[in-house]
Formats: sequence, structure tokens, C-alpha cells
Amino acid sequence: MKRRDFLKKTGTATAAAVASTAVAAPAVWAKGKTTRWKMVTTWPPNLPVLQTGAERFAKRVGEATDGRLKIKVFAAGELVPAMGVFDAVSDGTVQCGSGAAYYWAGKVPAAQWFSAVPFGLNAQGINAWFYSGGGLQLWEEVYAPFNLIPRPQGNTGVQMGGWFRKEMNSIADYKGLKMRIPGLGGKVIAKAGGTVVLLPGGEIFTSLERGVLDATEWVGPMHDLRMGFYKAAKHYYYPGWHEPGTCLEVMFNKGAYEKLPKDIQCIVDAVAMETNFWSLSEFEAGNGAALQELITKHKVQLKKFPDALLDDLRKLAKETMEEEADKDNVSRKVHEAFKKFKERVGIWGSISENPYYNDVADKYSLKG
Amino acid sequence: MKRRDFLKKTGTATAAAVASTAVAAPAVWAKGKTTRWKMVTTWPPNLPVLQTGAERFAKRVGEATDGRLKIKVFAAGELVPAMGVFDAVSDGTVQCGSGAAYYWAGKVPAAQWFSAVPFGLNAQGINAWFYSGGGLQLWEEVYAPFNLIPRPQGNTGVQMGGWFRKEMNSIADYKGLKMRIPGLGGKVIAKAGGTVVLLPGGEIFTSLERGVLDATEWVGPMHDLRMGFYKAAKHYYYPGWHEPGTCLEVMFNKGAYEKLPKDIQCIVDAVAMETNFWSLSEFEAGNGAALQELITKHKVQLKKFPDALLDDLRKLAKETMEEEADKDNVSRKVHEAFKKFKERVGIWGSISENPYYNDVADKYSLKG
Repeated sequence: MKRRDFLKKTGTATAAAVASTAVAAPAVWAKGKTTRWKMVTTWPPNLPVLQTGAERFAKRVGEATDGRLKIKVFAAGELVPAMGVFDAVSDGTVQCGSGAAYYWAGKVPAAQWFSAVPFGLNAQGINAWFYSGGGLQLWEEVYAPFNLIPRPQGNTGVQMGGWFRKEMNSIADYKGLKMRIPGLGGKVIAKAGGTVVLLPGGEIFTSLERGVLDATEWVGPMHDLRMGFYKAAKHYYYPGWHEPGTCLEVMFNKGAYEKLPKDIQCIVDAVAMETNFWSLSEFEAGNGAALQELITKHKVQLKKFPDALLDDLRKLAKETMEEEADKDNVSRKVHEAFKKFKERVGIWGSISENPYYNDVADKYSLKG
Repeated sequence: MKRRDFLKKTGTATAAAVASTAVAAPAVWAKGKTTRWKMVTTWPPNLPVLQTGAERFAKRVGEATDGRLKIKVFAAGELVPAMGVFDAVSDGTVQCGSGAAYYWAGKVPAAQWFSAVPFGLNAQGINAWFYSGGGLQLWEEVYAPFNLIPRPQGNTGVQMGGWFRKEMNSIADYKGLKMRIPGLGGKVIAKAGGTVVLLPGGEIFTSLERGVLDATEWVGPMHDLRMGFYKAAKHYYYPGWHEPGTCLEVMFNKGAYEKLPKDIQCIVDAVAMETNFWSLSEFEAGNGAALQELITKHKVQLKKFPDALLDDLRKLAKETMEEEADKDNVSRKVHEAFKKFKERVGIWGSISENPYYNDVADKYSLKG
């Protein structure tokens, strides 16, 4: 039932499946000529900010290179299945892909730290780690054996805790709770006695409505509103302790990237970083409006996880991360670097952003 | 004593002074040829992240255009004085400049909302406003009459409240307090009964040490450590309510920018956005380390402004912003748009980043 098991089962099949439809090897770069790339993503067509962000990346690269590099984007399933993206870019079937690093936990446990860690870094923290704290360099090391070069390409910001059909008053309420929550968050919930159910996006709503699921998490108000979860579950919990600032990625086939002249490599990197923060801005601006609609129009009951429940989840999350770090030396190395950087920005955050939100930012009523 | 008066006095003189050393009009763009631009900044040479950020911007543009656009950067006073940057770019003496929009409040009151508003938006909020909430478009409208195109180019994150020679227990402690604090923050302190003193950076330390100043603000731990303020004032207060996420700018002479081919305009925009978030990441990563050094090595006393004091300052800040908004129709329009967006992200922030910092992020001890 774990995403990694799903990955193990489909990973190899995927590589074989796409082999027959494989595009030509990346064209050798010729100055003044158009080079055409394919990008495969893990997102459904038109998924706001995630898929549209990948498309925006491709468009901006085309503009900034004056058409010298044109990237055609394929949503999940259009060329390869969502979970086949990593392999398709790794083996050069396509030149680049967009997804999130925790999708590849089954083959690269260390990848998880580069997307979302329960009780880990938020968007500002993880980006500081990537760009100014050695995080991106570590990520490059982790992906190098797979012939891949990663770049942050987006961030969801703090996610929501999820939709629940019952109130959550203590950690005991997770006993027997059937929840759709993938990845590391799911491992924490399993430790708390919950039953983790993994379902494709299209099946979640119906399962929740019928009571096959007691709860589900998704992203944040903007995406959750679109899924209509408010019709199937009454209680909308925050904060999203399990994904406090999920990083989305673009990854390049190493050979394809290295064939680019230096100026186009530089453009591709700058546009990836541009897209990263464009996406965070879209989430930040869009979630407020969607949240207001959920509360005022759809009468959603907004609830905060009780402090003691969060403390209990935090303990389980720490255990989980230590177990993940024990999987191999690379994971341990990444985990220790992540923890060290988290302490550094944590000290600063406690006297900067924390009092900003508590005492400087205006308070607004969330009542419907 | 106000920055704007300083600006009024020096603005015209500056334009005249640089006229004699004016560079040639921007070269007409020729494909395959190198176009050379000059960038003047408001920063001292080598000032970390601010001046080095401007230099990084120029370097990356050179790389991404394969040398088709080369920008030479001049620190404050090297070609024009700090406060002459706006005019020099506006009149085409140089093609671009780097600074912060509140420096130009004397000639464009509406510019202030695009840099820092007391009790306003933090970095994540103001960037969401720029890129996904119409803020950048408004900024372009405000600068258009001056022949300028603005882009965010950096962000300090939440600043520190400042260095004080005495404890601040209530708003009454501002009565007669001689503080170096420019701009809108200074107006708030003046309303509280303080005496606002404006001094060049190089004179602040000595004035503070000798008691000519009772207090000063600067930026954050990374920059404050460098200035040595801990040797002259014991109490280091947070949070920086007056500058909760100061945006730094790059501005282009409209004619020069429009002569660029579309692909290079696109590169320049992407690299500006890249530099914006690189700078925020540098502050986020650097401030934590500097703060630890200030506390453990230099035994600085870290103090939080009391809640009631912050509430009193908030009231004065609101009055100040309304007065500024009354100055002209453009300022009123920008102020209302800013307030509306602040409410939107404020609602979302109260259930995302706020509980992240309170309940999800680990707590670290700040003791020396």
C-alpha cells in the first residue's frame, strides 16, 4: 500500500513500456538551430501551479533562448506514467521531467529530504538550504548515480493537515483511522495506529464520501476546493505538519543538460529558480482566496490540531526520520545536514518570522 | 532630518553632477554584438548580499546572454552618489540601478509600499503580491512617469528591531530617545516622541558609542555583527516591525530596456527574480549563524519588544500609512491595493506559516 511499493512494482515495467515509444537521443547542440526536448511530469493535465508551472518553465525557457531550446511538456500518462518519470529521464528516453523527489523514495531513500520532511523546513527554510546552505549540492550528489541533475522548480508552501469526517482530539483518534496520506506522513500515521490508504487522485473523493476513507490530505485550500472534499468531510484541519513546504523538482538527463552551451544551462537554471518562486507566490496568493470561499460559501469547519496531538506526532515523526536515515549512508548524511541547517534557520526564525506572524502581521477573523 | 529632505536637497545636484561624466546613450542593439550597460547602486562597495547581489545579477546576465549584455556595476559614489541612482537611471545617464524604493519617497511617495511598510508584508507576502497579486504591475505604473521599469531584486527578510542602550518597556520609553531609523519607521518613532537622527552608515557606530545616539536599527544579525554595534549598545531587540521584509530593487531605463530583444528582456527578468530569492536565502542562512555568534561570543542580550509596546507602535504605524496615502491619488491607490492583499495572505498565513512557526518548527534555545 506504500507509494514505494507501487513504485517498485511499476518502475521497471514503465521503463520497458516507454522504450518502444522512445524519442530520439538528445540532439547534438547546434548554434542557431532549435533543439527540441521533451519533459514528462507526474501531474495530471492542467493541474494548477504544478502542471501549469512545468508548462510555464518550458515557455519561459523557449522565450529566454529565443527558441533555441524548445521543451514540449507531457502530463502524467501522456507519454509515460507518473511514476515512470524518474526512469524516463534517467535513461534518456526524455531530456527532462517534473515531479517531487519523495516519489522516488523506493529507489532513492535520500531523495525524500529534498521534497518534504514531517516537522521539517518550510518553503523559506528549504530554499535557503538549497541555495545558500549546500542543500542543492547534496541533492546533485544523490541524483548523480542516476544520471540526473535536479533543480527546485516549485513549492507548495505550508500544506493543510487534511479533511476528516470526525474530530481529532488526541493521538488515540488515529487508531484505526483510514487515511489517504502518502510518503513519510503516512509512515507517521501508521505508527500512530492509522491505516494508510493510497489511492489515485481521481478516486479519493468518492472513497471519502462513502466512508471507505475516514480522512485524506491533499495540498492546500486552492487545490482542495477544486477536489470538492468539503462535500464529503466536515472538518478541515491545520497545520500541515507532514508537508510544511513541499519542494517540486525539475530534473535533467545529465547528458542532455551537459550538451547545452553554458549560456543555455544558465538560462535553464535561472528559469527553474524563477518558476520555483512563482509557484510559491501563486500558492500564497491563491490559498487565501480559496480559504475564504471554503469558509464563507461552503461553511467548512476550520480546526487546528490540538497541541498535544501535534507533540505526539512530532515524536513519531522523529522516529520515522531516524529509521529512514538508517537505510543507507547517503540518507544518514543528508539527514544530518538537514537537521543541522534546520537548527540554524530555526534559531533565526524564532526571532524573525515567528514573532512576525504572532505580533507584527495583522490578525484577521476566519469566521464564516 | 528626514531622508526625503536629504533627497530633495541632493537629488537635483546629483543629476547635474553626473551630467558631466555621463556615459554614451545606450547602444542600439546589434545581434551578436556585445552591448555594455552601467549599473549604479545605493550600496557601499562589497556590502554583503546587497552590493554583492547587484554584482551577482550583472554576472548572471552576462553568462545567460553569452556576453551579449555586459553590465558593469558601480557602488554608491563611484559614479553617482547613492541618492542619485533614481535620477541617473531615469534620465538615461546609466541604463540600470539597484537600491530600495523607499529611498525615492521624496519624489514618489507611492514608491514606499514597494520596499517596506511598518507592520506590513513579510518577504513571502510581498513577493506573492508582486508576482501573483498585481503588485509588480502597480509598481510599473508608479515608475512609468519617470521612464523607469522596476523589478524586485532582493529581500532582507524580517529585520531586527535595533540596538538600544537602555531597556524598552513601554511606548513612553521612546520619549526623547535619539534613534537612527530612516523612512516610515522613523515617522512612527517621531510620533512616539522620539528624535529621529539620520546618519551615514559610517558614522552610526561612533555616535552610538558616544551616546549621541541612544539607539539604531540597521538590517539583521549578519550585517549588524559586521558593524560592531554590540560593542556600543547592550540590548538587541526584535522583531523588526518597521521593516518586516524589505524589498530591494533593480530599475531599468525604459528606453534601454525596450531596445533589448525579447529574449534578453526575458533573461534580465528571470535573473532579477533569481537574485531576489538568492538574496533572501543568503539572509535566511546567514542570519542564524551571525545571531549565534552575537549571543555566544559577544554576550548580546536578545530582547523582544513587549506586546503592549508593539500594539502602540502598530496604531502609530497605521496613522502614518494613512497620512502617506493621503499625499496623492497614486499613493492612495497603492495603499488600498496593498491593504487588500495583506488581508488575503494574512488570513492564509494565520493557519499556515503562523502555526508552522509556533507548533511545527522545532524550538531551539537562544541562550549564550
